[in-house]
Amino acid sequence: MIKIGVLGATGFTGEKLVDILLSHPKVELSYLGSRTKNKILYSDIFPKFHKKISIKCEPLDIKKAAGICDLLFLSLPHTISMQFVPKILKKGKKVIDLSADYRFKKAQLYERLYKKKHQDKQNLKKAVYGLPELFKDKIKGARLLANPGCYPTSIILALYPLLSEKLITGKVVIDSKSAISGSGRKAVIENHYSNVANNFWAYKPFVHQHQPEFTEVLKDRITGSLTFSFLPQVAGFEAGIYSVIHISCAKKVTKEKLNKIYNKYYRQSPFIRINRKIPKIKDVAGTNFCDIGFAVDKKGFEAVVISSIDNLIKGAAGQAIQNMNLMLGFKETTGLFSL
Amino acid sequence: MIKIGVLGATGFTGEKLVDILLSHPKVELSYLGSRTKNKILYSDIFPKFHKKISIKCEPLDIKKAAGICDLLFLSLPHTISMQFVPKILKKGKKVIDLSADYRFKKAQLYERLYKKKHQDKQNLKKAVYGLPELFKDKIKGARLLANPGCYPTSIILALYPLLSEKLITGKVVIDSKSAISGSGRKAVIENHYSNVANNFWAYKPFVHQHQPEFTEVLKDRITGSLTFSFLPQVAGFEAGIYSVIHISCAKKVTKEKLNKIYNKYYRQSPFIRINRKIPKIKDVAGTNFCDIGFAVDKKGFEAVVISSIDNLIKGAAGQAIQNMNLMLGFKETTGLFSL
Amino acid sequence: MIKIGVLGATGFTGEKLVDILLSHPKVELSYLGSRTKNKILYSDIFPKFHKKISIKCEPLDIKKAAGICDLLFLSLPHTISMQFVPKILKKGKKVIDLSADYRFKKAQLYERLYKKKHQDKQNLKKAVYGLPELFKDKIKGARLLANPGCYPTSIILALYPLLSEKLITGKVVIDSKSAISGSGRKAVIENHYSNVANNFWAYKPFVHQHQPEFTEVLKDRITGSLTFSFLPQVAGFEAGIYSVIHISCAKKVTKEKLNKIYNKYYRQSPFIRINRKIPKIKDVAGTNFCDIGFAVDKKGFEAVVISSIDNLIKGAAGQAIQNMNLMLGFKETTGLFSL
Amino acid sequence: MIKIGVLGATGFTGEKLVDILLSHPKVELSYLGSRTKNKILYSDIFPKFHKKISIKCEPLDIKKAAGICDLLFLSLPHTISMQFVPKILKKGKKVIDLSADYRFKKAQLYERLYKKKHQDKQNLKKAVYGLPELFKDKIKGARLLANPGCYPTSIILALYPLLSEKLITGKVVIDSKSAISGSGRKAVIENHYSNVANNFWAYKPFVHQHQPEFTEVLKDRITGSLTFSFLPQVAGFEAGIYSVIHISCAKKVTKEKLNKIYNKYYRQSPFIRINRKIPKIKDVAGTNFCDIGFAVDKKGFEAVVISSIDNLIKGAAGQAIQNMNLMLGFKETTGLFSL
Repeated sequence: MIKIGVLGATGFTGEKLVDILLSHPKVELSYLGSRTKNKILYSDIFPKFHKKISIKCEPLDIKKAAGICDLLFLSLPHTISMQFVPKILKKGKKVIDLSADYRFKKAQLYERLYKKKHQDKQNLKKAVYGLPELFKDKIKGARLLANPGCYPTSIILALYPLLSEKLITGKVVIDSKSAISGSGRKAVIENHYSNVANNFWAYKPFVHQHQPEFTEVLKDRITGSLTFSFLPQVAGFEAGIYSVIHISCAKKVTKEKLNKIYNKYYRQSPFIRINRKIPKIKDVAGTNFCDIGFAVDKKGFEAVVISSIDNLIKGAAGQAIQNMNLMLGFKETTGLFSL
Repeated sequence: MIKIGVLGATGFTGEKLVDILLSHPKVELSYLGSRTKNKILYSDIFPKFHKKISIKCEPLDIKKAAGICDLLFLSLPHTISMQFVPKILKKGKKVIDLSADYRFKKAQLYERLYKKKHQDKQNLKKAVYGLPELFKDKIKGARLLANPGCYPTSIILALYPLLSEKLITGKVVIDSKSAISGSGRKAVIENHYSNVANNFWAYKPFVHQHQPEFTEVLKDRITGSLTFSFLPQVAGFEAGIYSVIHISCAKKVTKEKLNKIYNKYYRQSPFIRINRKIPKIKDVAGTNFCDIGFAVDKKGFEAVVISSIDNLIKGAAGQAIQNMNLMLGFKETTGLFSL
Repeated sequence: MIKIGVLGATGFTGEKLVDILLSHPKVELSYLGSRTKNKILYSDIFPKFHKKISIKCEPLDIKKAAGICDLLFLSLPHTISMQFVPKILKKGKKVIDLSADYRFKKAQLYERLYKKKHQDKQNLKKAVYGLPELFKDKIKGARLLANPGCYPTSIILALYPLLSEKLITGKVVIDSKSAISGSGRKAVIENHYSNVANNFWAYKPFVHQHQPEFTEVLKDRITGSLTFSFLPQVAGFEAGIYSVIHISCAKKVTKEKLNKIYNKYYRQSPFIRINRKIPKIKDVAGTNFCDIGFAVDKKGFEAVVISSIDNLIKGAAGQAIQNMNLMLGFKETTGLFSL
Repeated sequence: MIKIGVLGATGFTGEKLVDILLSHPKVELSYLGSRTKNKILYSDIFPKFHKKISIKCEPLDIKKAAGICDLLFLSLPHTISMQFVPKILKKGKKVIDLSADYRFKKAQLYERLYKKKHQDKQNLKKAVYGLPELFKDKIKGARLLANPGCYPTSIILALYPLLSEKLITGKVVIDSKSAISGSGRKAVIENHYSNVANNFWAYKPFVHQHQPEFTEVLKDRITGSLTFSFLPQVAGFEAGIYSVIHISCAKKVTKEKLNKIYNKYYRQSPFIRINRKIPKIKDVAGTNFCDIGFAVDKKGFEAVVISSIDNLIKGAAGQAIQNMNLMLGFKETTGLFSL
């Protein structure tokens, strides 16, 4: 059994990683690290894990963790991962980082967006962006994997085939809705039940850090005439990102045409489902699937593409494990298809 | 006291009309009609009205209702109102119709959208479209008022000032999210709690009947270069419509500029609030306000305008009562400002 | 117009007080005090009040507040009110305290429950417990009013008639469910949307401080053979307390008998509704009503009584305003019946 | 691979059976029958099963189903199963019935509660009540298994150890809260999102058919002095039953004492978790666990026991599969522990 550690095991993403890894048939959870909880049974912090896991939460002792484990998940706040990664790689262990620290090839862009000096530029170049549907081969050989952001996952998967086919022109409007869990397990008034229940709001218009992330990944598919307008919003569903992408088409399209294109690009992708009907968040909540659906207006030059994922699974922990499967030579769906 | 009747008093909108009218200081609820409930205390159908209203639900006896009341609200399914309206007008009484039956000047357009012959073309011409912020003077003299649809209310109020100033160019993307109550109190599986809770989905892409409604109302402000792409969606909040309108600007704008424009158009409108912050659904839920907010990208040529209303109040019953106030010579806010 | 101040205006209860007082026809909101927010427009803290209130939040300057206002609401954490009350009374102004500081006649009991020395024993004796359905006459003459706790309100109103009639025997089981807002607007992980949504849990079994409160109020109706078992629980509805009281009857009863008893005690109480059907939380949410319903088993010796209120209205702010109406000589329902 | 059929595959329970069985390593889903949906891909009815299951929904052809399958789950309305069961048994196949048709040893009791003649009294005697924690040995040999009701599961598991130890005296108050899904996927107004969201209500006080079910199962542990008062309620969480059982103790107890007793009875039960903390619904939602927690008042003669399950899993589909595992000689937890 391959030994796995999760550093940052008490956040939403860390908890989901633990949850999925516990049922994974080929790995063994061997180290759970937390900044705040120490020497406490993990199942005492999260009673839902009683009878499922019996190990304790340890401090973020990177030396010890890298000593015990073959692969580490870093589910830590941005700017903290880059302090740990060099030590893990030096020990010859693999690492999957769920923060933004290694998502950008150019340190400069990262530094502008996250307002911190990058402290590990050397490894930055070696990091592989972990979107398995696009970069499977690179991921298989990766030792340092940068797991994509939740919004970018939903957006890139929806746009990549159409951009590759040069089907989109003009302004691309991306209207995304996310569960509040995307902002992390933080004790702030904005996350209070009474603020989120029955509410809905937009935030960070035109300035969200995920827009540079997805445009960076798609940049060699984007021609000069394209512009992007991305609006993230908080919705009151418990899990999910629902990205609606409003596009204008460079040539006349039909629903069948789009269907053919998506199937061409994702035929080998077990977690992409091209929907006959319009996607609903509940069909992907709790799973690693990305459902993609679309509609075309009757003239054939306007379309909406909808991409629907669970923000903590395909948008974070599930995708990270999908990447782990590839990095460790397992079948891509191991431990994930039965969610 | 002016005597008021509500026909269709047991639907979501009818119930909300009753709720608001009960606290209205200048009118008296004198007839509640229902197709399905008969000779039953209204407060037995809706126990929340115990001790607040003591009259019974009557059948849809238009003769009796028009005999008793000075003004009737028709909160009936589309295609049924037009059978009642001529009889009410003939009796010399006023009528506010909350269906789509009198919203279109051209019967043809209505007939195409609602798949029914229009049976009262004569009165169609006399009907006034009841958006008080735009048509206050006409409303004051109206005897037959067509209350706007919920989506059109949120969309027209957001677009009217910018279109009037010729500030918008190209494709206008309208991404709207509505509470499920917008589809009426229907016993169908799609409305089941287990389908709506924690869910989110788009419907009727490119073919929703509210797009022709709002483009019709705005048509003399729309120049040839503009196109509209409207996507309605169902969100799990209990009340509200949240319309995000993604626009490209014909000239460079700033937030201050937009602020000035909206204030110019809505200075006299008690229920429009131009927000300094991004609107949230909960700030308007339960009220007759329409909150409008916006953001501009740093170059000044892209903007999002957000319009947020309670779908059953400003999007239906509240607006109908606002119209009633104007038609009966009351202050526009009577009985509404304290919601 | 009577001038009113609210100290602690940014908590859930303070916000609700402001909301209701704004529509009250006989008073004027003249001072809003907050420990944390200062010299900020109240409508900037809560955008939902835009166009409804234009005053600023001030510090908790008790001297200034008592100088300006005729009556002050203290919506402050327990143990803080008693520092302010003597100063207000000395100025000859009236005060309604929504904390527990003046709910117990015996300082000792308070001190044991709230783990603080009582600092204003002198005024403790003068304080009137503000349950208008039971103590209307005393309330009318009160200068210092202790507004009841939310659970006690729902429980006392349900039990008082049956205890008065000596109808209950043995063990009284009170199984209460409350909205999370009852615990205040606190930025803690337990209040996070992801913890409360779709969840349900019991807390403080056998040790909740509201049990001594309601037994104290009911004590002269309680005979030796009665015991109480009270379990508070958190439910995911947005507003409300739903108290189910399981009782054994000292003599055989019927539903009609119970109906008669409740009507006897509450005939003059505008906010008590004796339900023909089983109460539902949504029928009282947003109102000042207390709905009481009941069922009797076929032998007639076991019954459940259900009491349903909005925890922030009849359980806090609404009841406080009902008390204010009585203290100021207004009609009891002024500003409350139209909620 | 053992071949399995589900008749009634489109209800909530049937859908959950399919969901869990799909990941079960030892069985193969071979027949999905539905009264209403026919010759349609199951994944077209429920898009969430796209890429997970490719078979079609068939009619309720019991002959065909029993021909193909080794074991059938009947997830059909009460009174329908008993028409099918004799035919399945005659074919030599095993059957797990999730309706109430075979839960009562005495046809008379069934007939009184469900208002139908029992049509298969012969097999009634052979049916085994499928609560694995109590009747494991009988279940292993069963050919006809009656899967328990959801409320009885939560209640019996909580009461059995204490009743066996003769620890309870007097009146037992059972205050249970269930998700609306317990009432089935029905298109009625009571199940509408707008009725259930943010609501809470009690129903069928003293007359719910599950009370005779759990008292029947527990009858040889119940002495004459005990009475039961059971109140079912609908709560707005998406999944779960939260049963609070208020008891008086025959002798003095402590929390440690109760802990010891529960551990004695459930040491071998993989799905029972004796909680150190008070159970929360979310810890069991989506799992087959039953969490049991308790509190004792300081004198030691009053206690509350709380039992928390997912109503569709441990309360229906999950327990049925747990029973299947035992009947087919698999490990009890197969396919269930990783939920």
